[in-house]
Amino acid sequence: MNRNDKQAYDRGTSLFSPDGRIYQVEYAREAVKRGAPVVGVRTTDGVVLAAQRSSPSTLMETKSIEKIHKLDDHLGAASAGHVADARKLVDFARTTSQRERLRYGEPMGVEALTKAITDNIQESTQSGGTRPYGASLLIGGVENGSARLFATDPSGTPQEWKAVAIGGRRNDIQAALEAGYTEDLSLDDGVTLALSALREADDELTASEVSAVTLSEDGFVTLDEETIAEAFADATPDSDEE
Amino acid sequence: MNRNDKQAYDRGTSLFSPDGRIYQVEYAREAVKRGAPVVGVRTTDGVVLAAQRSSPSTLMETKSIEKIHKLDDHLGAASAGHVADARKLVDFARTTSQRERLRYGEPMGVEALTKAITDNIQESTQSGGTRPYGASLLIGGVENGSARLFATDPSGTPQEWKAVAIGGRRNDIQAALEAGYTEDLSLDDGVTLALSALREADDELTASEVSAVTLSEDGFVTLDEETIAEAFADATPDSDEE
Amino acid sequence: MNRNDKQAYDRGTSLFSPDGRIYQVEYAREAVKRGAPVVGVRTTDGVVLAAQRSSPSTLMETKSIEKIHKLDDHLGAASAGHVADARKLVDFARTTSQRERLRYGEPMGVEALTKAITDNIQESTQSGGTRPYGASLLIGGVENGSARLFATDPSGTPQEWKAVAIGGRRNDIQAALEAGYTEDLSLDDGVTLALSALREADDELTASEVSAVTLSEDGFVTLDEETIAEAFADATPDSDEE
Amino acid sequence: MNRNDKQAYDRGTSLFSPDGRIYQVEYAREAVKRGAPVVGVRTTDGVVLAAQRSSPSTLMETKSIEKIHKLDDHLGAASAGHVADARKLVDFARTTSQRERLRYGEPMGVEALTKAITDNIQESTQSGGTRPYGASLLIGGVENGSARLFATDPSGTPQEWKAVAIGGRRNDIQAALEAGYTEDLSLDDGVTLALSALREADDELTASEVSAVTLSEDGFVTLDEETIAEAFADATPDSDEE
Amino acid sequence: MNRNDKQAYDRGTSLFSPDGRIYQVEYAREAVKRGAPVVGVRTTDGVVLAAQRSSPSTLMETKSIEKIHKLDDHLGAASAGHVADARKLVDFARTTSQRERLRYGEPMGVEALTKAITDNIQESTQSGGTRPYGASLLIGGVENGSARLFATDPSGTPQEWKAVAIGGRRNDIQAALEAGYTEDLSLDDGVTLALSALREADDELTASEVSAVTLSEDGFVTLDEETIAEAFADATPDSDEE
Amino acid sequence: MNRNDKQAYDRGTSLFSPDGRIYQVEYAREAVKRGAPVVGVRTTDGVVLAAQRSSPSTLMETKSIEKIHKLDDHLGAASAGHVADARKLVDFARTTSQRERLRYGEPMGVEALTKAITDNIQESTQSGGTRPYGASLLIGGVENGSARLFATDPSGTPQEWKAVAIGGRRNDIQAALEAGYTEDLSLDDGVTLALSALREADDELTASEVSAVTLSEDGFVTLDEETIAEAFADATPDSDEE
Amino acid sequence: MNRNDKQAYDRGTSLFSPDGRIYQVEYAREAVKRGAPVVGVRTTDGVVLAAQRSSPSTLMETKSIEKIHKLDDHLGAASAGHVADARKLVDFARTTSQRERLRYGEPMGVEALTKAITDNIQESTQSGGTRPYGASLLIGGVENGSARLFATDPSGTPQEWKAVAIGGRRNDIQAALEAGYTEDLSLDDGVTLALSALREADDELTASEVSAVTLSEDGFVTLDEETIAEAFADATPDSDEE
Repeated sequence: MNRNDKQAYDRGTSLFSPDGRIYQVEYAREAVKRGAPVVGVRTTDGVVLAAQRSSPSTLMETKSIEKIHKLDDHLGAASAGHVADARKLVDFARTTSQRERLRYGEPMGVEALTKAITDNIQESTQSGGTRPYGASLLIGGVENGSARLFATDPSGTPQEWKAVAIGGRRNDIQAALEAGYTEDLSLDDGVTLALSALREADDELTASEVSAVTLSEDGFVTLDEETIAEAFADATPDSDEE
Repeated sequence: MNRNDKQAYDRGTSLFSPDGRIYQVEYAREAVKRGAPVVGVRTTDGVVLAAQRSSPSTLMETKSIEKIHKLDDHLGAASAGHVADARKLVDFARTTSQRERLRYGEPMGVEALTKAITDNIQESTQSGGTRPYGASLLIGGVENGSARLFATDPSGTPQEWKAVAIGGRRNDIQAALEAGYTEDLSLDDGVTLALSALREADDELTASEVSAVTLSEDGFVTLDEETIAEAFADATPDSDEE
Repeated sequence: MNRNDKQAYDRGTSLFSPDGRIYQVEYAREAVKRGAPVVGVRTTDGVVLAAQRSSPSTLMETKSIEKIHKLDDHLGAASAGHVADARKLVDFARTTSQRERLRYGEPMGVEALTKAITDNIQESTQSGGTRPYGASLLIGGVENGSARLFATDPSGTPQEWKAVAIGGRRNDIQAALEAGYTEDLSLDDGVTLALSALREADDELTASEVSAVTLSEDGFVTLDEETIAEAFADATPDSDEE
Repeated sequence: MNRNDKQAYDRGTSLFSPDGRIYQVEYAREAVKRGAPVVGVRTTDGVVLAAQRSSPSTLMETKSIEKIHKLDDHLGAASAGHVADARKLVDFARTTSQRERLRYGEPMGVEALTKAITDNIQESTQSGGTRPYGASLLIGGVENGSARLFATDPSGTPQEWKAVAIGGRRNDIQAALEAGYTEDLSLDDGVTLALSALREADDELTASEVSAVTLSEDGFVTLDEETIAEAFADATPDSDEE
Repeated sequence: MNRNDKQAYDRGTSLFSPDGRIYQVEYAREAVKRGAPVVGVRTTDGVVLAAQRSSPSTLMETKSIEKIHKLDDHLGAASAGHVADARKLVDFARTTSQRERLRYGEPMGVEALTKAITDNIQESTQSGGTRPYGASLLIGGVENGSARLFATDPSGTPQEWKAVAIGGRRNDIQAALEAGYTEDLSLDDGVTLALSALREADDELTASEVSAVTLSEDGFVTLDEETIAEAFADATPDSDEE
Repeated sequence: MNRNDKQAYDRGTSLFSPDGRIYQVEYAREAVKRGAPVVGVRTTDGVVLAAQRSSPSTLMETKSIEKIHKLDDHLGAASAGHVADARKLVDFARTTSQRERLRYGEPMGVEALTKAITDNIQESTQSGGTRPYGASLLIGGVENGSARLFATDPSGTPQEWKAVAIGGRRNDIQAALEAGYTEDLSLDDGVTLALSALREADDELTASEVSAVTLSEDGFVTLDEETIAEAFADATPDSDEE
Repeated sequence: MNRNDKQAYDRGTSLFSPDGRIYQVEYAREAVKRGAPVVGVRTTDGVVLAAQRSSPSTLMETKSIEKIHKLDDHLGAASAGHVADARKLVDFARTTSQRERLRYGEPMGVEALTKAITDNIQESTQSGGTRPYGASLLIGGVENGSARLFATDPSGTPQEWKAVAIGGRRNDIQAALEAGYTEDLSLDDGVTLALSALREADDELTASEVSAVTLSEDGFVTLDEETIAEAFADATPDSDEE
């Protein structure tokens, strides 16, 4: 299909193209790719979420570039894409998990929360008067003793992953994850894998440009810059060998 | 009708073309064909639903690619097409069948549930402000002792089938079903037929890429990978003979 | 008026063309013609409704191709055109006749029901935000001892007929009805006329591809395939003689 | 103004053209002209309404082609144009006159009812989201002992007439009415004038293709075919003399 | 600005053109000019409203062409332009003045009523979903012993006049009013001036084609045809002298 | 940016152009410039508002061309631009100041009222379904003993001025104000400045074509024509000297 | 992407372009750049906000050009871009912080308030029927003893800064801030840095054209012109040395 034909169908969320695609959803996926990458790794003990954040100025507080979000004691999310859209999804996730906790007296499951979010996203792709969300989330946590890691996409599809990258340079990072992943990773191994995969695709990345958390029986734990720097040090030799 | 003329009518769900067609519904059918195929077979003892699920990465949990959905103890669905749209239809089906069970104290019939779903789909094709669903469902179950198997399509038409395939490679699989179907199939025969038909159209398909359930007096039973592998083994010689 | 001029007016149900036509309604009539034909014949004793149903696969349950619909004990409808739209009109008809029966303690008249349906159809042709219905109904029944037969069309016009065909090959079948109709037809004669007219226009039609009902003092009676086959046998010589 | 310029303004009921016209209303008038004609004649004793109805098939019940409508004991209407639109206006008229009768305990006046209808029509020409009505009504009745005859048009303008024709061949019939009308017509004379005027413009018209009523102190009286045939016989010589 | 540029801005009531005009309002003014003219004259004793009404057929009741409308005992209006729109404005005026009378126990002032009407008109020019009114009103009456005469226009601007014409041939009639107006006109002089001005611009106008009222301490008084004929006779010599 | 590019962005109030402008707001400013000018001057004792009003006919009551509006005992406004839009803003201002007075038992401040009005104007430039107001107001009054003078514009921006002109010939009049303004003007000086500035730009202007008010501790005082004529006489020599 | 392609996607806030951008948001950023610049500097003792305001006339009260806004005792904002849009955001900020204070009995935090504002901005970029805000805010204050400084942008993204400029000449001013900023700035140093950075980019800027406030334990303190002039004097030598 040439460009003129395509343009006829890509200006409404309520339209299918003749080959059955919804272009606005596909363009929203491009918005996700424009964002800095985030990575998730599921390990035997918990989930690692790591994100690159790059600042346009030395005077910006990089900690205000929120890429990783605490949703509940045991639930976290990492986001890529249009920042304001991601914030709206994260707000939705927090409100939903808190309401569930109040209603049932126990924390909401990772899968249940992911599906509540993707239902909300799907709605934005079918009803008129709104555009899709230009952001995707990784959602991780421990649920009944098991680590779970999910991703959402702008079409509203939930997917469960062992390890996954979304956002810019996604393909390179995912390849590094596939090369390094094993089923018996410890949480510390997971941190090393996540950070080395991020660096694989951008070898100038420094510890100060990365944020990372672990979600385990110890809850939502933010890694300090020193820990990240150490993991980078650990990761580099492995990375060289590959 | 040439392409320019066609484009004049295919950008609104509320429009007929001069030859009486609703193009957005037809394009939604293309969205269904873009999805991995699912198969349903009705046997003397129950219904078999089987689906192919293919993963974009070795790190994705293929079990999270939901192609087969439990709707109630005795009711299941298999979906093809736009995944998020299918999830919305499945949610509608679950809510509807639960409400009916609560109201009348007995499970909802397969036909009644199918028609509630297709009424909902039809609405999306006539009212403005929304697009049709880019997904179709097979709905199977046992109702008053009889196995029933229905399909929905994006226009909102319900159809009852003895055996049917929807989604990608639909024509090849349907041909295999027509060649192999007999009225006196046992549930085990049905499993073999469903899986061999899926494989007919893609001979590199492995057991791990397939999910299947049976709906019978024993309720909603998920087949484990070993059973599927055995059925594949059973199926292959038959397949060779044809 | 050439094609370019026409296209300027045919994309909205809320628009008249310069010569006073509503093109979307006319295109909806084309949708009716795309459907398999249905026939109605009014006789001295009741009304006959007959329909052709053709299946895309030997594995589809042809009985699930609903062309004839019971509305109440004494009321039936046959539909042609967009199947999902027809189902919605039939649902409206059933709800309306049941509500009337509850309210007044007696069955709703054929004419009153037809007009309630056509009022509903007209609304879809004047208000924005919706398209017309791409389906037409024949509505038959016995009312105060008299057989009545009505047709609806996509503009919302009700018409009473002695015998009428709608849907595909409508002109040929209507010609056969006009040639064979007499005022003193018995119900059995009516069945023969309806079926021979259907066959007139498609001489390969078999009894299994046809469904038919009678509406008389005996209520809504579905003809079995054997009866239809006999009527075909009866009909053929007559047909030859013409 | 050439055609391209005109097309810029004629696709919305909410638009004036540069010369101050509302094209959609003018096109709705064309829809009225597409319908079979109806005639009204006001006499000293009451009002005559007459209509031509032509059937597309010998099997259609011409009596179901409703051109003349009883609104109340003393009020009737004849309609031309889009049949389903006319039915909606007639339903509005019936509901309005019944509500007035219930509220005030006496029948609604012909002029008051006409203005309620034209207010309703005007609304359809100014608000968005709807099209004008493609139908006009003649409304006749006896009010405080005087015969009154009004016409509506698609702009929502009420007009009182001594004798008037709307619908197809309107100009020819109106000319015949102007030639034959006198102030002292009896009701019988009015019937003759109305029918001869209809026939003037179509000399192949037969009594069975015409329906007529009188509205007088005797209420709404439908003329039988014999009476119409006699009036035709009476009318013809006069017609020849002209 | 050439025509193509202009067309870009004249199809919505919610749009300014680059030179700050609202074309739909200007086109509505053209609709007013298409109507037959009406005239208002303010005198020392009251206000005169006069209107030309021309009938398309000798069989139309010219009195049903409502150009002059009683609003309350002491308030009247004359209208020019789209008849159905004028009727809606007059209905609004009547409802408003009656509500005010009920609320405050005294009649509504001419200026207050005019401004309520123009507020309503302005609304139609700013909000989407509606078109402006294609009609203007002259509103006259006696308020606290003083005669007042106002005009509305399609933009919603109220203006007070000593003597004014709106509708067709407006410029010619206004010139005649300016030539003949003096501050000390009696009510009878005002009638003569109003009628002679109407005739100035159309010397074939007859008394039967004109309607006129006076609004004074004697309330709303309709002039009979004889009085109008006399005024025409009085007026003609004056007219010749000019 | 050439004209074709510009047209792509100027037809909706909800659109920014690529260079960050809202064209509909800028076109509304043109509507203000099409109106007759009004002037405001702040003095040590109060505020002067003056306006030119030109009549299309000697028979129009120029006093009905409302350019200056009393809002409350101590608050006045002068308007330029689309008359009906200005009336709507003035109505809003009156309602707002009265409600505030009722609620708090004291008059509303000039600045607070101006900001309530500009908030209302801003809303019309951001929400769909409406166009901006094609009118601007000068709002003057005495607040806590100090004279205050504000202007609104179609974007909804409030500005405080010592002396300002809006509407037609605005630039010439503003230059005259800048040339003649001093901080120690008395109210009488302010009247002379305001009127001479109006006349500066149109030396044929007569006292009868001007209206003016002062807002001081004496409240809202309308200047009679004689006072205006005297001020014109006073002003002329000064004007000659410049 | 060439201009024609781009235009296809930039006229709706609900649309992504094929490369995942929302053009209306980017154009709103241009509206911010059209405004006069504002600067924020975070110091050890508090936050400095400074703004340039330029007047179109010597008669405008520059103090009415509101660039810096008090939100609460301890919270202030500076705005750049479309003035009326900025006012609406400031009103929202005031209402929100007051409601929070009432609800919780303590002042709202700087970060929490910023995020409430950006959520509101995001909404305007996703829902139909509105355009984005063409304004950005700097929000500063002391929260739990720490100075905080945030910026919003038209996409609804919150960012925390040590020192930042928005609006016209932003890049030059930001470079000056980056050159002069140190972590140990006192509040007085911050004033000097903010003003010198503003002047860096426009060396003709005078003290009277600048407004500035400090937010510290002493609350919201407006700097008088003398203080600003002194800071300018202090700043100039430093500026020369660079």
